[in-house]
Amino acid sequence: MAAGKAQTLAERVLAGEVRAAARLMRDIDDALPEATLALKQLFPHTGKAYVIGITGSPGAGKSTLTDRLIALYRKQQKTVGVVAVDPTSPFSGGAILGDRIRMQGHATDEGVFIRSLATRGALGGLSRATGEVIRVMDAMGKDVVIVETVGVGQDEVDIAKMAHTTVVTVVPGMGDDIQAIKAGILEVADVFAVNKADREGADRTVRELRSMLELRNVTSGGSHDAQHHATASATFRPPEHDWQIPIVKTVAARDEGIEELAAALASHRDYLVKEGQLLRRETQRAREEFVAQLRERLVRHALQRLEAEQGALDEVAERIARREADPYTLAEQLSEKLVR
Amino acid sequence: MAAGKAQTLAERVLAGEVRAAARLMRDIDDALPEATLALKQLFPHTGKAYVIGITGSPGAGKSTLTDRLIALYRKQQKTVGVVAVDPTSPFSGGAILGDRIRMQGHATDEGVFIRSLATRGALGGLSRATGEVIRVMDAMGKDVVIVETVGVGQDEVDIAKMAHTTVVTVVPGMGDDIQAIKAGILEVADVFAVNKADREGADRTVRELRSMLELRNVTSGGSHDAQHHATASATFRPPEHDWQIPIVKTVAARDEGIEELAAALASHRDYLVKEGQLLRRETQRAREEFVAQLRERLVRHALQRLEAEQGALDEVAERIARREADPYTLAEQLSEKLVR
Repeated sequence: MAAGKAQTLAERVLAGEVRAAARLMRDIDDALPEATLALKQLFPHTGKAYVIGITGSPGAGKSTLTDRLIALYRKQQKTVGVVAVDPTSPFSGGAILGDRIRMQGHATDEGVFIRSLATRGALGGLSRATGEVIRVMDAMGKDVVIVETVGVGQDEVDIAKMAHTTVVTVVPGMGDDIQAIKAGILEVADVFAVNKADREGADRTVRELRSMLELRNVTSGGSHDAQHHATASATFRPPEHDWQIPIVKTVAARDEGIEELAAALASHRDYLVKEGQLLRRETQRAREEFVAQLRERLVRHALQRLEAEQGALDEVAERIARREADPYTLAEQLSEKLVR
Repeated sequence: MAAGKAQTLAERVLAGEVRAAARLMRDIDDALPEATLALKQLFPHTGKAYVIGITGSPGAGKSTLTDRLIALYRKQQKTVGVVAVDPTSPFSGGAILGDRIRMQGHATDEGVFIRSLATRGALGGLSRATGEVIRVMDAMGKDVVIVETVGVGQDEVDIAKMAHTTVVTVVPGMGDDIQAIKAGILEVADVFAVNKADREGADRTVRELRSMLELRNVTSGGSHDAQHHATASATFRPPEHDWQIPIVKTVAARDEGIEELAAALASHRDYLVKEGQLLRRETQRAREEFVAQLRERLVRHALQRLEAEQGALDEVAERIARREADPYTLAEQLSEKLVR
């Protein structure tokens, strides 16, 4: 930069300035136009980080697992960004996951950047903000970005699609309840971690996961069509015929199985590169990001227009509750007025 | 109806015709304009059903609990509608929950209507469809509508807001992991069910939940401000100062504690009526429904426009992935073109 000329926020982020990145992430949280401007400038510099998603039910030990992976990557001299997404924490501001990781000793490590994100109200901005924060960490030059999400709802599925490789964490002792989670898991899992594997039933859980994966192969007509019906919907993962989803046993609390997990992640990454699947994954990420941007932007426009013409959302909702209007007609009228 | 004049779909639903309701629900799933027309006609006839939300992690036993509640309400001569929402099941078409309940013996009971809903792709239509299906069951004259959701993500929180009373189901043995789920739970819980309460640690889980609730009271400045900071965001539950959230132990598999749970539900309903909170809840429901309608409608418009002008979403995503465009500029341009 020429002396005397102030650097833009994006330039400061690219130069690795932590305070600039933190500031940009606050702007992203608040959906400020300045954030969008910086993101546009950063975007051409992104695409270098390897993005790992870690998901699973509450209580599966995802934070400890994340913590151990950070330690391992740091030993390999890799820099790490962590996005801890907690869609269930409107009260805490989503601080729980991030705090947990921070407390475990990476707070003073300059090679680790941790950011928590929580739900931000009715606009559905969580996916949008998560995608943007990943991009910022990517632009900062982080080698690895870990995205940790609580739960297995639609938000988490959307967010998992922003990763190159997604680890689904399960714990022993789910019993026949594994049935209840299998479908969502199948969609996003590239690697399974059976955590707390020192507990009773770990081998049974591994067997159940394995037969679940085999069943899927059979029902979709052989292993080479493993994810065949996934192509029926535009939101599903593209078929990756030859990838055999590994199941790794870990005891994160005792640092066991972490190297095996990292090896499974590395081998999925190699697979993506070798099979030319990286562009597919990038395209999927791009689609998620674009739709998330569009959705939040349009709803925000619509609610502003609503407020200008009909009063605040709460008043409109009360009119519906009193049966003075119906939500279908109102939404139809507003979107017809709004969209040309 | 005048003889010879064909009844509309809405009229047939109001007359209690099961096949008409099933047909309308399929149209809702497919987001057909005919569905919206029927819903507009049905809306003035809704608002009579008592809507119960049942949520919690996978494996908490929600389906069995739902099954037992159905049996109890049927004994009381109440008709029941069940919406089994499974946002994690794109592969199964969300059939798992519904099938589970159906298999448990209500399949031939005409007083019970069960419908499964799963995620329907990128448009975020799950909340929209859930709200609509609840309305149809309400219009059919069901006394009670039970909405069962898997997980604790944002979708489930949105859906929980469509209920008058929400039961959060937890199981013993979450240990300190209860921390991870507490925030989301606090937002939506009107009643806690500690299910599988014959397991070790049930009393400890009850104690942990109780101290969590007390902590909330303390941090928000006394029990009369229990949900005070909830008012900070438009999407939070309105404050209900005087409602003490009950914690009920159940063993659904052995039909234990179900009457106590039903009593807790009834007392929350009485509370809503007596304290004049029903309109607040209805307003909250209306807001969720209206925003869900708006969101899906706008994104659909936008993606149609995109396809007409720039090509299919996949092609646009691939251009982003190749760094020929960025998602922020594209979303901005499209929404500026679209919105007047």
